[in-house]
Amino acid sequence: MTSSQGESAQGPGALHARPVGLVGLGLIGGSLGLDLQAAGLEVRALVHRERTAERARERRLANRIDTNPAVLQGCGLIVLALPLDRLLDPAAELLAALPSDAVITDVGSVKQPVLERWQPLHPRFVASHPMAGTAEAGVEAGVRDLFSGRPWVATPTASTDPASLALVQELAATVQAQWLCCDATAHDQAVALISHMPVLVSAALLETAERGGQAAAADTLVRQLASSGFADTSRIGGGNPELGTLMARCNQEAVLQAIQHYRQQLSELEALVEQNAWPALQQRLEHCQALRPEFL
Amino acid sequence: MTSSQGESAQGPGALHARPVGLVGLGLIGGSLGLDLQAAGLEVRALVHRERTAERARERRLANRIDTNPAVLQGCGLIVLALPLDRLLDPAAELLAALPSDAVITDVGSVKQPVLERWQPLHPRFVASHPMAGTAEAGVEAGVRDLFSGRPWVATPTASTDPASLALVQELAATVQAQWLCCDATAHDQAVALISHMPVLVSAALLETAERGGQAAAADTLVRQLASSGFADTSRIGGGNPELGTLMARCNQEAVLQAIQHYRQQLSELEALVEQNAWPALQQRLEHCQALRPEFL
Repeated sequence: MTSSQGESAQGPGALHARPVGLVGLGLIGGSLGLDLQAAGLEVRALVHRERTAERARERRLANRIDTNPAVLQGCGLIVLALPLDRLLDPAAELLAALPSDAVITDVGSVKQPVLERWQPLHPRFVASHPMAGTAEAGVEAGVRDLFSGRPWVATPTASTDPASLALVQELAATVQAQWLCCDATAHDQAVALISHMPVLVSAALLETAERGGQAAAADTLVRQLASSGFADTSRIGGGNPELGTLMARCNQEAVLQAIQHYRQQLSELEALVEQNAWPALQQRLEHCQALRPEFL
Repeated sequence: MTSSQGESAQGPGALHARPVGLVGLGLIGGSLGLDLQAAGLEVRALVHRERTAERARERRLANRIDTNPAVLQGCGLIVLALPLDRLLDPAAELLAALPSDAVITDVGSVKQPVLERWQPLHPRFVASHPMAGTAEAGVEAGVRDLFSGRPWVATPTASTDPASLALVQELAATVQAQWLCCDATAHDQAVALISHMPVLVSAALLETAERGGQAAAADTLVRQLASSGFADTSRIGGGNPELGTLMARCNQEAVLQAIQHYRQQLSELEALVEQNAWPALQQRLEHCQALRPEFL
């Protein structure tokens, strides 16, 4: 794994030679469009619906916005900013419209299935994943500086073209992201542990408060007493349901493995409570307190 | 369960008749001291160590602050703002110093064990629990307006003196808290579900990220990729270890029951992932999304 923030190996400027294409103008695509235009790049975007195109034009999310895939012609780099399901099952018209000399990258939160699907489809494909907030979605969601200081992970393979990788690195540097390269499987396991599985852990907490409250005839009370701690712990479980489902679906194996790890840890803590092992429990919680800053 | 914000049944003023005593000047005691003085009340506080007393005097957390229990003489209401373990095992000098005509209340996050211990000890004891933030602790933690708009729960029993209960309600109204009365067992089950058990759920998540990261040889990666979602979900698990342990210890039965409920919910979600039941999973997550605002 390598990490750096800054210039691409190719030197700055290659990204500016030709327009950048965006497929999709949701949170990630729209935010990229705003930042890239601000950096002086020409941005062309393909969207699915005419109504989206109209609203995206009003928001000036790109210089040219169209529902016709021909808008991508002439682009030197194309970012597939699509939901995971559409990314893994791309429309034939989209595939036909991708210039063979353009570099193609994606923004999906799972990398191994994306590589398996896309590497055979395009010689200059680079799998990547900007780790940016995902509470909002749709054409209204894009904002400036979404990627600033956030990791932008690429998962190149032995057959990834180095010049293509360098161009994606330049893209990440242009939006002030923190560039990281790692193995796709390691990426998928890591995001299962810190993002995809926690959605289910957090959702189960909400369901438990509801069902447990019913069982204790304390439905109203649990709602009245829930405080900032519960709000924090339940936030991602109460987030975008489509996204949560896609993460579990597209990263199924790693998510199931992470749940198994999780169940083991929770059982160990439960056993300490059951056995009145208070000093041992406090020691575990002290470890957690010391551990958490490493993840922030 | 009854709920109201405002005047006590006794009418305003009873609280002002005599000084209010505080035992302990940590987050809750110190914050009460600041708010009550601001409301024009005379506040006297008993603390354990001379060094704490000195610092508390510098911070003006009460009008009189002493390590001698005699400081509580003359108080009409005394708030035991002690950690749960010291509350459940009170010092003999403290018990001897509590005036028999004063109303005594506590601020513990568990109510049934507190009632069992304290109701036989003092005829005017009222069990109560202000639900306020607990990230900070100690003599530096007290702040103004900690209780404003937050629930202040009392758990009276058939033998609770109504006039004593009314005085505690006046205290809660004075610091702008939202008054609630409920059964002690229902309270303990509710806080297990929305506060005590979630600490363990959140701690297990931190441990899983660490152990799972090691197992995947992705120790550094999980730390680099953890984002705001992980920060939120892990916050209470990485919080005060003494407090987390005391909550589990003093509310053991309800916490174990809540973990069982929780395990059931998580297993159901896991089964949906295992069985590729994506529409059903999305439906559950949609329910969670709709449910969460009820807890905020």
